[in-house]
Amino acid sequence: MHSLRFTTETSSNGVVERDFVVGEAPGVLWSPVSGPDHAPLVLMGHGGGLHKKTPALTARARDTVTTWGFTVVAIDAPGHGDRPRTAQDEQARADLRQAVVAGENDRFESVSVRYSTALAERAVPEWQATLDALQALPEIGTEAPIGYGGGITLGTAIGIPLTAAEPRITAAIFGGGFFPHEELIETARRITVPVQFLLPWDDEHVDRQSALALFDAFASPEKTLHANPGDHRTIRWTGVDKEFLARHLGRAAMSPA
Amino acid sequence: MHSLRFTTETSSNGVVERDFVVGEAPGVLWSPVSGPDHAPLVLMGHGGGLHKKTPALTARARDTVTTWGFTVVAIDAPGHGDRPRTAQDEQARADLRQAVVAGENDRFESVSVRYSTALAERAVPEWQATLDALQALPEIGTEAPIGYGGGITLGTAIGIPLTAAEPRITAAIFGGGFFPHEELIETARRITVPVQFLLPWDDEHVDRQSALALFDAFASPEKTLHANPGDHRTIRWTGVDKEFLARHLGRAAMSPA
Repeated sequence: MHSLRFTTETSSNGVVERDFVVGEAPGVLWSPVSGPDHAPLVLMGHGGGLHKKTPALTARARDTVTTWGFTVVAIDAPGHGDRPRTAQDEQARADLRQAVVAGENDRFESVSVRYSTALAERAVPEWQATLDALQALPEIGTEAPIGYGGGITLGTAIGIPLTAAEPRITAAIFGGGFFPHEELIETARRITVPVQFLLPWDDEHVDRQSALALFDAFASPEKTLHANPGDHRTIRWTGVDKEFLARHLGRAAMSPA
Repeated sequence: MHSLRFTTETSSNGVVERDFVVGEAPGVLWSPVSGPDHAPLVLMGHGGGLHKKTPALTARARDTVTTWGFTVVAIDAPGHGDRPRTAQDEQARADLRQAVVAGENDRFESVSVRYSTALAERAVPEWQATLDALQALPEIGTEAPIGYGGGITLGTAIGIPLTAAEPRITAAIFGGGFFPHEELIETARRITVPVQFLLPWDDEHVDRQSALALFDAFASPEKTLHANPGDHRTIRWTGVDKEFLARHLGRAAMSPA
C-alpha cells in the first residue's frame, strides 16, 4: 500500500490546505482548522484538461469545509495538472483541440470517449489507493463516511466507475457535459447509492438524450436530476439541493474528538 | 367584476382557513393568524378528478403559510370538488374510467388532452376573476407578489395557460404527470418567469419525452427541472428546492402593516 506524504500546508479563513502525494498521484486535502476527527470525506473530481485546484473546485471545496465541517480531497487525473503527460495524453489533447478547431463534433466525441475511458481506467485505482492512504490517517480513519462530490465532464467519467467499484462511497454527485458511451451507462446500472445528477440543459457538444439515458441507468432508489439552462461552461446553477451530501453523509460531529 | 364572499372561517395551528365564492368558483384561502398585509400570494391547483382541499394540497398550503408567512389560495376546477358537473364533465370522467379499465392508453391520452384543454379554457378566467377579487381585499391588495404554486397533472394543464396569460404571476411551479399536447407546448413558449418543473421520472401513462419537451419549451431564462424516480402517484420528492417561491416572491414583511 502506498502511504500518503504531505508536502505543503497552508491555512486561511478557517481552512487548512495540505498538498500530498500518494504513489504517482498528487493531491490536496482541505479540512477545517479545528474540528472533530472522522468528519465526512468528499472526493472531488476536476474537468477534462483541468486540475485539482481550479478556482471553481477550490471554492467549492472550501465552501464544503466551512459550511459542513467536511474534509475534501482532490487529485490530479493522469496526465493532468502537476503530472507528466504520456505520448497518449499529448496525442489525445492535440486531437481534441484539432477537432474543436475544425468543428468536427463526431471526431471530438470519439476521441473524448476513448481518452476519458482510458483516463478512468488509470484514475480509479489511484483514487482507491488515495482512499486507503487517507483512511490510514487517524483524523479520517475508516469511520468517516465517504461521498463523491462530483465535477461534471471528466469528474463524472471517472466518478461513475469509481463509485460502482468502491463500496466505501455511499452517495455521489455526477453531471452531464460529456459523452456517456454505452459502457459507462452499463457501469451506471451497478450504482445503487443515492445520486444527484446535474444536467446542463443546452450543451452544444453533448446530446441531451444520452445524458438522460445515463440518469435513467442508475439503479439507485434515490436519485434526483437537476437541469438548468446553459452548457457546462456557461451554466448558472439554481435550485440545486445543496444539502444532498450532508443529508446522506451526516454532519461532522460537533464535539471535538 | 365578481366580488369575493367569505362563507366559513376556521383557525388551527396558526393558520386561518376561509372558504369563499367568486362567481361560480368556490375557493379556500389559507393565511397566517397574524402577519403583515400584502404577503406573497400562492395559487395552488389540484389534480384531475380531485378538489381544492385534498389532504396533500391542504398540507402543502398550511406548510407554505407557516414556513413563509404566505397566503395560499385554491379553487375547485370546473366540474370538480363542490361544483356541479355538466354532461361534458360526466362524459369525460366516464370515458377516462373506461379507458383505464380497458388499458387503452391512447384513448386515455386523447380524452385527457381534450378534457383538460376544455377545463383550462373555463378555469383561466375563473382564476383571473379570483385574483381580481383577492386584490380588492385590503390585506392582499395589488402589492402582494403572486406565484403559481403548482400541482402536477391538471394543476399544470391549467397553470400554464394561466401563467402565460397573467402578468401578475411572477414565478411558477409546474410538473409532469399529464399529456403536454402541442398547443400547451406552444403556450409554454410564451412563459418567461422563473419556472420550477417537477418531473416524475417513471410515469406509467405519460411519455417522458413529451414532458421534457414541455420543460424545454419554457422561454424562462431561469428554469430548473427536478426529476425523481416514481410516477405521479407514488413519487417521493427528494432534493427539490423548497425555497423557489420564497426566492422569487420574497418573504412576508416582518413588521405588521
